[in-house]
Amino acid sequence: MKRIEIIGVEGMGEVRTGDCVGELICAACARQGIELTDEDVLVVAQKIVSKAEGRIVSLKDIRLSERARELGRELDKDPALVEVILGESRRIVRKGGRALIVETHHGFISANAGVDCSNVGMGQAALLPKDADASARTIRAEIRQRNGKAPAVIISDSFGRPWRVGTVDVAVGIAGMKSIKDERGTKDGYGYELRAAVTAIADEIAAAAELVMGKKDGVPVVIVRGCQTEKKEEGSVKELLRPAAEDLFR
Amino acid sequence: MKRIEIIGVEGMGEVRTGDCVGELICAACARQGIELTDEDVLVVAQKIVSKAEGRIVSLKDIRLSERARELGRELDKDPALVEVILGESRRIVRKGGRALIVETHHGFISANAGVDCSNVGMGQAALLPKDADASARTIRAEIRQRNGKAPAVIISDSFGRPWRVGTVDVAVGIAGMKSIKDERGTKDGYGYELRAAVTAIADEIAAAAELVMGKKDGVPVVIVRGCQTEKKEEGSVKELLRPAAEDLFR
Repeated sequence: MKRIEIIGVEGMGEVRTGDCVGELICAACARQGIELTDEDVLVVAQKIVSKAEGRIVSLKDIRLSERARELGRELDKDPALVEVILGESRRIVRKGGRALIVETHHGFISANAGVDCSNVGMGQAALLPKDADASARTIRAEIRQRNGKAPAVIISDSFGRPWRVGTVDVAVGIAGMKSIKDERGTKDGYGYELRAAVTAIADEIAAAAELVMGKKDGVPVVIVRGCQTEKKEEGSVKELLRPAAEDLFR
Repeated sequence: MKRIEIIGVEGMGEVRTGDCVGELICAACARQGIELTDEDVLVVAQKIVSKAEGRIVSLKDIRLSERARELGRELDKDPALVEVILGESRRIVRKGGRALIVETHHGFISANAGVDCSNVGMGQAALLPKDADASARTIRAEIRQRNGKAPAVIISDSFGRPWRVGTVDVAVGIAGMKSIKDERGTKDGYGYELRAAVTAIADEIAAAAELVMGKKDGVPVVIVRGCQTEKKEEGSVKELLRPAAEDLFR
């Protein structure tokens, strides 16, 4: 019987700058009686990684550019927040209403560059990790060092989408697994050759994990167990970024 | 411990026009020793629903319009397939490369209007159900009639996305649950009021289910168990469609 389990890791506590996320995860798993395996996928909320890496800013300390002031007025948005978003962005993709959709330095197309004021403290904002693949690799190495097991690691964040209401969680950093499952060129049960069968499996795992994480339930780490992923030491979220030339929506 | 299980329902066999999907699901669950509950969410692949509803066409029988011939040439696509796609569409949103992205009569923005030639037999194409909310309600009623339990039902399909590589599964029809989880106006642990916290929970459940379904593994039905969804008799996928006026990407 094909079966996947999604297990919340609880009691992680408040994560602070300089904390070792891998160590906190191992400790929380041990308290909960969970033994991690090499086949597990560990999904870690971006927010705690950003906290551990000190990617938190106080909005009152931000020096405002004229551009941020103008955009803030235009979009009815806190200009300090706008300034932080611009600092994380290569360019603005769309703006309107109160939305500022940008391409981040990582290449993500994202509302507000993933900058987020929830779950960080009043007047603060969390930025995405500078290199969330590297963050994922670090967490994976920390876990391997502590218990000899190296689950794949996905760092996740909630992204809005065009056309559809609401966010779904996607991968922003990956270590130890292939992000996509590519079945192009294989045949279905009728002999038809699949043409478009590229599945963003890392994003589906991130979405599945969010069902257990929630937005304010204090479950920033989730184990996805039983998923058929392909191991890949040098896995990267870059596999999930569509090259601009192939994208009809830039 | 927060925990979700995703369980594949196997041995559904080939679904044919006129089959009662709810009955097939009940029989397959019984063989597998699974007792459905009111709290389960049943995710059903669009393909078997389309088959049961006879939403399958033979491409060789399609009468070609001049527009389909032209678009076929322009996009290097089978003009019969283009004709079928146009028939399912309100309008073309983007075209280029070999891609034809349209708004379907349901209001979905989707590559090829969800028309798909895999897993249906050579020379055939499956169309989305005409009204997949109604299909989901029917399946739910069939199950309730047979075993007194009424799990929520999501009909899922694989959709591509702008900006990111690969498909993820999303909901195209829903019965018995609320599609979104709206936490706007509630406060996080720091007292910060959440502003953008609308989660497309039905899409996350569809994505999670795909991890067990796969594209050619013969598992078109999946039970998601342990998920905190909100019951809603009149639930609809329309809750997930962003009104054009609020959408920066139409």
